Amino acid sequence: MSFDFFGIIDSQRACRRFSADPVDEGDIDRMLESASHAPSAENSQPWVFVVVQNDDIRREIASLATQVWLNGRAYVEGTLAPNILRDVDEFVNGCFGNAPTLVVVCADLRRVSESLAASSIYPASQNLLLAANALGYGSIFTHFSVNCGEELQSILGLPSEISPYGIIAIGRPDGRLGIPRREPIGPKTHRDRFGTPWAPGEARPLE
Amino acid sequence: MSFDFFGIIDSQRACRRFSADPVDEGDIDRMLESASHAPSAENSQPWVFVVVQNDDIRREIASLATQVWLNGRAYVEGTLAPNILRDVDEFVNGCFGNAPTLVVVCADLRRVSESLAASSIYPASQNLLLAANALGYGSIFTHFSVNCGEELQSILGLPSEISPYGIIAIGRPDGRLGIPRREPIGPKTHRDRFGTPWAPGEARPLE
Repeated sequence: MSFDFFGIIDSQRACRRFSADPVDEGDIDRMLESASHAPSAENSQPWVFVVVQNDDIRREIASLATQVWLNGRAYVEGTLAPNILRDVDEFVNGCFGNAPTLVVVCADLRRVSESLAASSIYPASQNLLLAANALGYGSIFTHFSVNCGEELQSILGLPSEISPYGIIAIGRPDGRLGIPRREPIGPKTHRDRFGTPWAPGEARPLE
Repeated sequence: MSFDFFGIIDSQRACRRFSADPVDEGDIDRMLESASHAPSAENSQPWVFVVVQNDDIRREIASLATQVWLNGRAYVEGTLAPNILRDVDEFVNGCFGNAPTLVVVCADLRRVSESLAASSIYPASQNLLLAANALGYGSIFTHFSVNCGEELQSILGLPSEISPYGIIAIGRPDGRLGIPRREPIGPKTHRDRFGTPWAPGEARPLE
């Protein structure tokens, strides 16, 4: 197993199909510990994790995600590539691609204001995903919780101050993951002011 | 220089004082490229970066941040530790701790809805901070842009669709950085449902 930093950063990608192999609990600890090393607003460390491995609760969350996806699917049908649409259909209908472990990442709103919570919770989530990649797991961050916060709160018995920000599915990938596709940074990077290319000829006033 | 993944994750911490050494532009490229490998909603890759090295623009942004900090300082005086308050005072008054490079991380709202932008932009920012750490730089993510979006947009000439989400200061640390302080994850981690400890005896219904 390689722990090369840039190799891990560059190879991270979404995994939507998992094998039945469980996620080692020591590895989950390492992922959560990595998450807890993220920066947070005023070092408030407002993250709360619910690690879901119980089959019934996983299925309840997946069924909620399926509803959210079906409600919103029409809005993205025109913009999402057909193969991604099909992958997401399979992923949500198949109980988060059969991921043996879900981590629901929440913000403790007694520790941080709502306006600053996202900038603490998402970096922690990103550390978790990177650590999963480093340890040989596939993972995916999902946004379903954005549109079903209350129902998810009820399934997990979350108090009102503990607000879910995302659901991460983790497991061993079922099959080989492709190479992540990313656009070059040149056209998105500006020097000193918007519109001045970072690299000559690259950034444009508006693409 | 070590590129050990977990070493880099575990040692990341805020830096608020920088030496005058410039940030190598090849290193900035590597940080931005790392940022671009973050996951994003529907793979929209909505990030836009403005790399500010120009002294006048850096000072203009710092003067804006100082205003925002002074306006909000009273709200956090009671909760922030006195040494952090003092560090932030010095940091904003001293032009972001004299960081030679600022990266303003923005979301292109034509690519992603406002409700999903944060969950794409903050993971990318986190990759950038980690890459800075890997390359031996100090860095800090600041939230000042949350309260001064319009003024920052005007300083940088950002079109209305390009919304600033954070300002990252980068440079060589001036002095040795301390060990990051993080609370243990046990009391913040729950098994299957909120209130059931992940590790026996650790998680409590509400801390």
